[in-house]
Amino acid sequence: MSDKCLSLSKRLRTTPFTRRVEAAGVKAYTVYNHMLLPTVFESLEHDYWHLCEHVQVWDVSCERQIEIKGPDSQRLVQMMTPRDIKRAVQGQGLYAPLCATDGGILNDPVLIKLNDDHWWLSIADSDIQLWSRGLATGYNLNVEIAEAEVWPLAIQGPKAEELIARVFGEEVRGIRFFRSRMLKFQEKEMMVARSGYSKQGGFEIYLNDANLAEPLWDEFFAKGQDLQVRAGCPNLIERIESGLISYGNDITDQHSPFECGLDAYIDLDADIDALSLPALRAIAGKHKNLLVGLAFNQPMEFDHYDIEFENRTIADITSHVWSPRFRKHLAFAMMKRDYLANHSEIEIDGQVGKITELPFSAKALNAATG
Amino acid sequence: MSDKCLSLSKRLRTTPFTRRVEAAGVKAYTVYNHMLLPTVFESLEHDYWHLCEHVQVWDVSCERQIEIKGPDSQRLVQMMTPRDIKRAVQGQGLYAPLCATDGGILNDPVLIKLNDDHWWLSIADSDIQLWSRGLATGYNLNVEIAEAEVWPLAIQGPKAEELIARVFGEEVRGIRFFRSRMLKFQEKEMMVARSGYSKQGGFEIYLNDANLAEPLWDEFFAKGQDLQVRAGCPNLIERIESGLISYGNDITDQHSPFECGLDAYIDLDADIDALSLPALRAIAGKHKNLLVGLAFNQPMEFDHYDIEFENRTIADITSHVWSPRFRKHLAFAMMKRDYLANHSEIEIDGQVGKITELPFSAKALNAATG
Repeated sequence: MSDKCLSLSKRLRTTPFTRRVEAAGVKAYTVYNHMLLPTVFESLEHDYWHLCEHVQVWDVSCERQIEIKGPDSQRLVQMMTPRDIKRAVQGQGLYAPLCATDGGILNDPVLIKLNDDHWWLSIADSDIQLWSRGLATGYNLNVEIAEAEVWPLAIQGPKAEELIARVFGEEVRGIRFFRSRMLKFQEKEMMVARSGYSKQGGFEIYLNDANLAEPLWDEFFAKGQDLQVRAGCPNLIERIESGLISYGNDITDQHSPFECGLDAYIDLDADIDALSLPALRAIAGKHKNLLVGLAFNQPMEFDHYDIEFENRTIADITSHVWSPRFRKHLAFAMMKRDYLANHSEIEIDGQVGKITELPFSAKALNAATG
Repeated sequence: MSDKCLSLSKRLRTTPFTRRVEAAGVKAYTVYNHMLLPTVFESLEHDYWHLCEHVQVWDVSCERQIEIKGPDSQRLVQMMTPRDIKRAVQGQGLYAPLCATDGGILNDPVLIKLNDDHWWLSIADSDIQLWSRGLATGYNLNVEIAEAEVWPLAIQGPKAEELIARVFGEEVRGIRFFRSRMLKFQEKEMMVARSGYSKQGGFEIYLNDANLAEPLWDEFFAKGQDLQVRAGCPNLIERIESGLISYGNDITDQHSPFECGLDAYIDLDADIDALSLPALRAIAGKHKNLLVGLAFNQPMEFDHYDIEFENRTIADITSHVWSPRFRKHLAFAMMKRDYLANHSEIEIDGQVGKITELPFSAKALNAATG
């Protein structure tokens, strides 16, 4: 099934950067949190090589910030995630799956602690505001919940630090991964974090004044010409090569964190009131699926996602792309663990693919001979 | 801003009908409840005239059914809506705004009572499952909540009754508006309701077996050739002419039902435990905006949505389209009531539009001279 036209309407919200994104020649969008997210500028592969070599400016406004304020805010956030948030530091980003009472993943945001009574959930694609408001109403919590008027702009790529230093000052170089500082652009203070949805390095600016969107965008282009700055977006090739999972694609509310390899973000033994902990403790170690990587030596079509073996479904292809770097077709697959226990390969449409752990390692990919 | 390409991924879910929709030549999609919804087949205007004259088969699987079962299901549904659901009849569809504790609209589904302990919420575009699960968790309600394995298929247009009678039998003719019957297709019983997102008449089939999707689709085409049956979809021209509002476009959680002309669906004096009733009682009559219609004599561009008058925003254009029937450009606008009180026209980009009530009346449109 090839790409189609997208009918625009107000419901698919534009962002304060959309006019600049359009002027930069965006070719395709996806819809994420009811908002436009660019997916291609020149071509997937051109965008990929540029991202890995230079620096790009990404409109990721669709990473909506669910803002939770008030005396019960930390309690509510902890109810939503099985990751212990007690040790979170002010200004720190904490990747944390949100799980329902059955352990299923409802979202996998980055939690940002602004202070004890003020949190942002930088969410993936599901209406977590509704879940958090439902809980707050039912438990009668003293919190205010809203979608913040904040539109993240990501600066990604190996030259990102140089570019962001030219705009926000040298002190950005001291920001550690997933940490942030409040810095000024045109007298307005906003959060600048070392983070982003690629493994090429970079920063995210949590723009909090829509009127500054175009001046900020323009500033990066004015100061980054010699760095070959370009408009870009999360890139499917880079994402798959880097093993970055995507909520709604690779994981859903039908999966527990264990199936998605997120065990490290679950504090099973912590003394916390996470709503999902009883269920997660009960199912720990008993999960039937695991998200793995697949590598094929030739381009694959995957016109079906459910992969059968001996008359049962053993895998579900969740994301895939041809990797021009490794000259392999890479896929993520939610696979039956009992199949995994006895197989290191899978045959699809007559082609044999190597099963690997996620994230892919360059070594494993070079060794994968299909 | 012209339409763009849509990058497909698993997160934008396909439906059991998607292969048939593609084969029928769909030209564009939107994304609705994380699922593909066709928007154009031949052209917006061709699709429109065909819909008004013949019969179309619409893949509206994206009208997801949030299924609420169990002893507390009726209680939970009533908590969510300020419309009194006590008198709902089994198999009846009930249009009902869902409102938060502040009165803001979270969705405007059709509620379907399957029995006292079993409800479907046929939702517009927001993750109401998360809101209902949050409430059920917080209030410790005895309910099961899931997205049902149900994919609605709409048959719309003046010849819809004839076509659906040929497939499901003559008894469909006795189904009243927003009522339903359980009828069989290939031995499988499924709900058939007289409903749909157009005012051209028609039915919706709540398909409950994905394996029957293509046989059912094919049956409508096999039996409808002489009726000039075609694949179609909710049509923007028909929707605007008919005054059908769209959640996310025309109304959002920032609006109360009063601002959207939904007063008739709010039982302010009912003895019900709707979470929103205290807020709605407090704000009734005090709302500052009202959704109205606008009619211009010439095509409009609307490259901006916020309309100013005397240095303040007085209206927000939420949806609009050129009407080939009335030869007018029609729009919905969320307008300040104090402006409305003193004006029957609005000037935008040098053009004067007539302000009318919604839904538009043919009489008013013919009288609107701009």
